[in-house]
Amino acid sequence: MAKKIPYKIYLTEDEMPKAWYNLKAHKGARHAPFVNPATQKPCSRDDLTHVFCDECVDQELNERDEYIAIPGGIRSFYRMFRPSPLVRAYCLESALKTPAEIYYKFEGNNTSGSHKLNSAAAQAYYARCQGLRSITTETGAGQWGTALAMAAAYYGLHLDVYMVKVSSEQKPYRKEVMRTYGANVIPSPSNTTEAGRKLLAEFPDTGGSLGCAISEAVEKAVTTDSCRYVLGSVLDHVLLHQSVIGLESKIALDKYGVKPDVIIGCVGGGSNFGGLIAPFMGERLEGLNDIDFVGVEPASCPSLTRGKYVYDFCDSAKTTPLAKMYTLGCGFMPSPNHAGGLRYHGMSPIISKLYHDGFIRAVSAEQSKVFEAATMFARTEGILPAPESAHAIRTAIDEAVACRESGKKKVILFGLTGTGYFDLAAYKQYNEGTMTDIIPTDADLARGFSTIPDCPVNAGLL
Amino acid sequence: MAKKIPYKIYLTEDEMPKAWYNLKAHKGARHAPFVNPATQKPCSRDDLTHVFCDECVDQELNERDEYIAIPGGIRSFYRMFRPSPLVRAYCLESALKTPAEIYYKFEGNNTSGSHKLNSAAAQAYYARCQGLRSITTETGAGQWGTALAMAAAYYGLHLDVYMVKVSSEQKPYRKEVMRTYGANVIPSPSNTTEAGRKLLAEFPDTGGSLGCAISEAVEKAVTTDSCRYVLGSVLDHVLLHQSVIGLESKIALDKYGVKPDVIIGCVGGGSNFGGLIAPFMGERLEGLNDIDFVGVEPASCPSLTRGKYVYDFCDSAKTTPLAKMYTLGCGFMPSPNHAGGLRYHGMSPIISKLYHDGFIRAVSAEQSKVFEAATMFARTEGILPAPESAHAIRTAIDEAVACRESGKKKVILFGLTGTGYFDLAAYKQYNEGTMTDIIPTDADLARGFSTIPDCPVNAGLL
Repeated sequence: MAKKIPYKIYLTEDEMPKAWYNLKAHKGARHAPFVNPATQKPCSRDDLTHVFCDECVDQELNERDEYIAIPGGIRSFYRMFRPSPLVRAYCLESALKTPAEIYYKFEGNNTSGSHKLNSAAAQAYYARCQGLRSITTETGAGQWGTALAMAAAYYGLHLDVYMVKVSSEQKPYRKEVMRTYGANVIPSPSNTTEAGRKLLAEFPDTGGSLGCAISEAVEKAVTTDSCRYVLGSVLDHVLLHQSVIGLESKIALDKYGVKPDVIIGCVGGGSNFGGLIAPFMGERLEGLNDIDFVGVEPASCPSLTRGKYVYDFCDSAKTTPLAKMYTLGCGFMPSPNHAGGLRYHGMSPIISKLYHDGFIRAVSAEQSKVFEAATMFARTEGILPAPESAHAIRTAIDEAVACRESGKKKVILFGLTGTGYFDLAAYKQYNEGTMTDIIPTDADLARGFSTIPDCPVNAGLL
Repeated sequence: MAKKIPYKIYLTEDEMPKAWYNLKAHKGARHAPFVNPATQKPCSRDDLTHVFCDECVDQELNERDEYIAIPGGIRSFYRMFRPSPLVRAYCLESALKTPAEIYYKFEGNNTSGSHKLNSAAAQAYYARCQGLRSITTETGAGQWGTALAMAAAYYGLHLDVYMVKVSSEQKPYRKEVMRTYGANVIPSPSNTTEAGRKLLAEFPDTGGSLGCAISEAVEKAVTTDSCRYVLGSVLDHVLLHQSVIGLESKIALDKYGVKPDVIIGCVGGGSNFGGLIAPFMGERLEGLNDIDFVGVEPASCPSLTRGKYVYDFCDSAKTTPLAKMYTLGCGFMPSPNHAGGLRYHGMSPIISKLYHDGFIRAVSAEQSKVFEAATMFARTEGILPAPESAHAIRTAIDEAVACRESGKKKVILFGLTGTGYFDLAAYKQYNEGTMTDIIPTDADLARGFSTIPDCPVNAGLL
């Protein structure tokens, strides 16, 4: 190619995707349905629209359309922070002396600091179209809450964010970003819900948990007029919205004139990884490529590499439908790893299905090794990565080093989901050499597995 | 124009400027020379190369070349974080119901969070080419120190950053970013220099000042083998490097097919504003346009709107050469405004000259009004701005509202220099209604003016 190869590629606005990619149009990505824990029967549309926006539920259940149009009202919002660049990591390659080509799709160039805005925009838009006045959600580390606060401000919706109390105290500035966008941030547990009051009565000094924050947000949504609950990961419609990452990556890689051999993403609930791989996996499920898809999870919360593939609750308070997924048990308590976005006991049902069927490989990484990779990446590529994203960097570096040793010239693509500006307490630990790796023992896992419901739908599976 | 007008424009890497724009090639931008306080004579090249890198000094003194080539080694680094987008603020325009078109050049999409990286890259590169092993600098709010840490990591230089002690305590995370990039961050005053030891002996509990941090960094540079001092604003070569902002803006505005009527930037030391206006001002000085250039400063530190145009020291410790500039007196202590980057007693000599000759207009803004604009901007345009940048937003909004009232359809361009992720304590104050505006009284100013040196070169001017 005579043309100079660029350092990074931004698509023009005309080139940006006009439809999301629905992986479930391919049989291989279809998973067992959500189950109502009361009836042990598949959830009906009504079960779900009680909690979620109608259009999101329809997308959740859509196994027909490979492409689902992105409405103009969402594309306008996407243009505020997209396209995101696909970057060739020349400096990292050079530092690693690898023959591999490394590319990353960077989703952190927006105020929420992560890819979460892709789905926040869509969900807030549909809530607005449905004529709702308000939405609720929970947030732990705060990236999802921030993204939704931005989207709610844009579409003129009231937003209540239940923020795990200990996080709201440890990360007061995350809270302040959400408030600047007009969101009402409520430390959870709170006395605004039955679930919160009950927990406070029992444990007045609790710092809260994501499980409780979910319960409060859902309760608030179903007991408030003209309100619905929105979720930032795990669900199929969230992965659908995130497919914009993979679609843009694919177009940009075509412009670079390369095809990926390996695609790497961090996995917590699975939405960024699911979005990144979507169009590539669609081809794979039809036998059109042989890409090595790698999900990277923290060794402290190893749902794919050490979990079970069963029906489990999505929250620790056991209020949600049951999902068939890889899980450590809804009562599993991960050690305090700094990648808050990856501290989830379960996994996207789509990702779980693909992993179970051998289409995805999973690896786990210890956080000190992850921060080593993060620091190397910051110094060579300039961007300070989020701890979550740095899991993907770790594995990309390992792959590139393996190429150096084998002499193979692989094309590696990874998802750089976000920036680490609000994670500097973690970098401080790493810089000062006080970071520790706590990996669950088999006994820890057994305690978690014991919280998986022993319900009829799981009979014979446990 | 049949073509759809984009929301934002990224230049391709081929379109990125290959030379900076040297405004001093135009007679109207040439200012009185720096003066050696000991001799009261213009500084010689040797006076300056003792402290600064040779190439930067040559650029500082260059009044000949309108374009100065950007070396390939710097353009490689620029490609890591540039081009920056030129954005049409459709959502802000719509919220303001203004007939004006508003455009902003966004320089915050890099880990340092601001435009500072444009000059940090250049200065670190030249230090490296000169064969130096290390560089020193000071930092207050931390944006400059962070940018230089990134550049030093890229070019393999050791960096000592003297960080005002009170800032290093109030902004531990800024410090952590610099450390992650490998910089040695020293709270100032320190016992690593004579200047620091002297101050500590006199005031053991002092929180330090930018003036003292400059003195320490300069002392360290001139007493260390193979080391030079680098500065993030004020000087002509810094404005030169920042001209990449204006050059890219000009190309992108041409693509939009518009010409600006008003160009607005915040002014502290003047480097971002000087860089943004450079190519447009070059035309103006030749009578080729009639653009309204507006510098916006905090009402708490009004060097242009209430300062004097005289020779003054660049630092409060009176160790630097004397510069002819608008100043509040090198001993002026601004009230604790949150726009740390704008709390400087002086002003770029180029900007000062242009203001004095009527080519630039200056306005001042109170910080509560600035945060009102910042919040409106965040909610409509998505980006959480730095308090410094929000000064430009304030004036852009005021201009757009004036257009609504007059019916004039002006084209407004402003510089959005950075993001506010490390300024959330300030947003918290604003959100909670506890932000105050402290504007210096005439007596405060008189106290500051009394610190302007009563030296021969100022005789007759004071």
